[in-house]
Amino acid sequence: MAIVTSAPPGMRDFLPAAVARRRFVMERIREVYRLHGFVPLETPSMERLEVLLGKYGEEGDQLIFRVMKRGEALSRAVEDGGKELADFGLRYDLTVPLARVVAEHASSLPRPFKRYQMQPVWRADRPQRGRLREFYQCDVDFVGSRSLVAEYEVISAVTGALGALGFTDFRVRVNERRILSGLVELLGLPAEQGIAVITVIDKLDKIGMEGVQRELTLLGVGAESWELLASLLKPGVTLAEVAAAFAGRSPAGEAGCANLEALFALIARAPLAAGSVGFDLSLARGLSYYTGPIFEIALPDLAGSVGGGGRYDGLIGMFGKEEIPAVGFALGFERIMLIMEERGMFPELAEGADLMVSQLDGAPEALAAVLAFAKLARSAGLSVEVYPEVAKLPKQFKHAESIGAPMVAILGLREAESQTVGLRRMGTGEQVTLPWSEAIATLKGRA
Amino acid sequence: MAIVTSAPPGMRDFLPAAVARRRFVMERIREVYRLHGFVPLETPSMERLEVLLGKYGEEGDQLIFRVMKRGEALSRAVEDGGKELADFGLRYDLTVPLARVVAEHASSLPRPFKRYQMQPVWRADRPQRGRLREFYQCDVDFVGSRSLVAEYEVISAVTGALGALGFTDFRVRVNERRILSGLVELLGLPAEQGIAVITVIDKLDKIGMEGVQRELTLLGVGAESWELLASLLKPGVTLAEVAAAFAGRSPAGEAGCANLEALFALIARAPLAAGSVGFDLSLARGLSYYTGPIFEIALPDLAGSVGGGGRYDGLIGMFGKEEIPAVGFALGFERIMLIMEERGMFPELAEGADLMVSQLDGAPEALAAVLAFAKLARSAGLSVEVYPEVAKLPKQFKHAESIGAPMVAILGLREAESQTVGLRRMGTGEQVTLPWSEAIATLKGRA
Repeated sequence: MAIVTSAPPGMRDFLPAAVARRRFVMERIREVYRLHGFVPLETPSMERLEVLLGKYGEEGDQLIFRVMKRGEALSRAVEDGGKELADFGLRYDLTVPLARVVAEHASSLPRPFKRYQMQPVWRADRPQRGRLREFYQCDVDFVGSRSLVAEYEVISAVTGALGALGFTDFRVRVNERRILSGLVELLGLPAEQGIAVITVIDKLDKIGMEGVQRELTLLGVGAESWELLASLLKPGVTLAEVAAAFAGRSPAGEAGCANLEALFALIARAPLAAGSVGFDLSLARGLSYYTGPIFEIALPDLAGSVGGGGRYDGLIGMFGKEEIPAVGFALGFERIMLIMEERGMFPELAEGADLMVSQLDGAPEALAAVLAFAKLARSAGLSVEVYPEVAKLPKQFKHAESIGAPMVAILGLREAESQTVGLRRMGTGEQVTLPWSEAIATLKGRA
Repeated sequence: MAIVTSAPPGMRDFLPAAVARRRFVMERIREVYRLHGFVPLETPSMERLEVLLGKYGEEGDQLIFRVMKRGEALSRAVEDGGKELADFGLRYDLTVPLARVVAEHASSLPRPFKRYQMQPVWRADRPQRGRLREFYQCDVDFVGSRSLVAEYEVISAVTGALGALGFTDFRVRVNERRILSGLVELLGLPAEQGIAVITVIDKLDKIGMEGVQRELTLLGVGAESWELLASLLKPGVTLAEVAAAFAGRSPAGEAGCANLEALFALIARAPLAAGSVGFDLSLARGLSYYTGPIFEIALPDLAGSVGGGGRYDGLIGMFGKEEIPAVGFALGFERIMLIMEERGMFPELAEGADLMVSQLDGAPEALAAVLAFAKLARSAGLSVEVYPEVAKLPKQFKHAESIGAPMVAILGLREAESQTVGLRRMGTGEQVTLPWSEAIATLKGRA
């Protein structure tokens, strides 16, 4: 029986060129996060199931990969009808692990605690185009402050990171959870219906105004309320217009508007490094745990968002005794990769060797010289591949091409004796013979 | 019910200072691997169970973490008595995934293919001191050559990496699988008993000569054979002495000795960057898949090894149709970390912010100046934390200390108006007021 050798569904092998591009993006994001004073955190791939369950809604619970018990514990669980087959699950996001770490290591963490985390997460989604089961997230979270500086800093960090990658045409859509609550009030609906209504508004992009109206009518929104809502959901509605609609009618809505006004004023006075920021009443973000401003980053050529976040003052403290305010923003690493590939935004990355050293003859002195010259070149910072066998030169040149080495050193017994080396430029076929030190200098010049 | 917030057993949270040290080590290893022409590969955390099972012996199969099926497939498996509860397992090492990738992506990989891989692996070992369930390995493998250059290059890469980390006192112990087979021949035992005998010899370090003698006697090794073996297992036995014992008596042993002689000659002519290399007849390494030279790196203050490997010509091709020769070496990342911590080998790593900007008053103009100055400092490459709230200065200074920021910028309305900033050196309490550009220059000088 032949074994299937492809990567598991929804997961991927990254060959060297792909790893180089992924590292390029990750290091740039990391550097901007670092400049913003965020420090790195890493957590285990697994968490106890009781830590994970109930945090992502019912659907989320279903999507957690569970790691099986073993031995007798497993046998007992099977006999028991398969109810408790697992103790641990794979990390589903980077926020719940952060909340756990903040509870566990409270005394050794500064407060406020600003951390970034760039690690894979796993979701047992049905694999399909663009839906992965293993993917990286790049999160920043500002833990422990109610100040708008936290919002400003996470927005500055993620927009700065996108800017450092070469993105200029993105837009940070901003809304406020309390503005959405205000809308629910304005429509005269009970607060409990809020989530359902907000979920409908969130679909405006996809189902259009008529779709939203149809679904809200089913939820009991009357014609008069709909008129009001429609006037606010029109494209380009300003924060001031929304604030005016709330005036005297929704304290939550007013508070939300005032908060966003202050945030936009801050951004106007200390502009972001890249992209633009704007109010968007139709932004809702599904997750029910947000308590203040919410954000999402849109790109013109991407359905969906390249990142999102917001203030969630109730979540980080969930494993401890106190409420801990926090603002977080997650960049979708795989989407960034996808768009950068599509747009051709990657510079040429030197992934392979700078030099291949070939073998001309099998004499031990020649091989010793090959290895010694390779060592010298490496100590000068060059990445060097040694062709391992004596073979015809065209075959060795072909290998140099396949690994992308721009230069080949040719070193046989004659060169070994004179401490020289033939340097061949693969692009042009030009070849010169030089003493070792000059050869290294030449290579350094072109590498 | 309070939820346990510690990391799962055998796994660890890495707080910022720990992440900084781990990255420091990983980047140094990566750089030396890169200089040696190895290119990076990354594979999924999961593999199909049929890829993993049967590759690590029976004990290994037990230690694979299995990922549960879900939904109906799981219910059916439970009804079926719990036989096929899982389709996938977590990566157990980096070698089997490499073999799978070589089979799957054969046409897009160069041959020889030199890859490094630095990723976590998972083993369901009983957690105990120094035994982890999630840990990193740093592997180099030279795939597709029978030349000793492959052995030389992987040894050069791993010893170079240890050297770059500051290790000088390590020793690469080298033996040859065929020398061990020769020993079995010499002792007059059937080849099938070879593994058992080798396993006993491998324990010489732990159980001493008497222990080895006792266990070999149980395996049927007679007094005369033992005399011969004992004369070879004495400390400091040379390769030439072993070769002499094999002469005319064991073709396998002779071939193994000749091969190591050639390898040592190569190393003598092109010496390694760090550490020493020597023959060690008692090195056996448990894994049965080695076919040629085997290596292990010992440190004087470490029981066990900090890395090991060897030639294994039968393994990499296992998922394809052809035999593919290969030499690999794995550095034990967590052991390196442990020893470096114990020996105090880490330089001071700037993990936190270079600067904290404090807030003196709540005026919007002052806050805008705080954010603008932070932006300016960041664009000069400084890592900057903005204290998010207006608070008494001593409290803000305390936070600067807790995040390790050596400098604090003090910026209130007065400074905002004059585009100046107070700079306080946290160590001495010295404070100067400077125009922004001069402040940045000062900070750059000390950062």
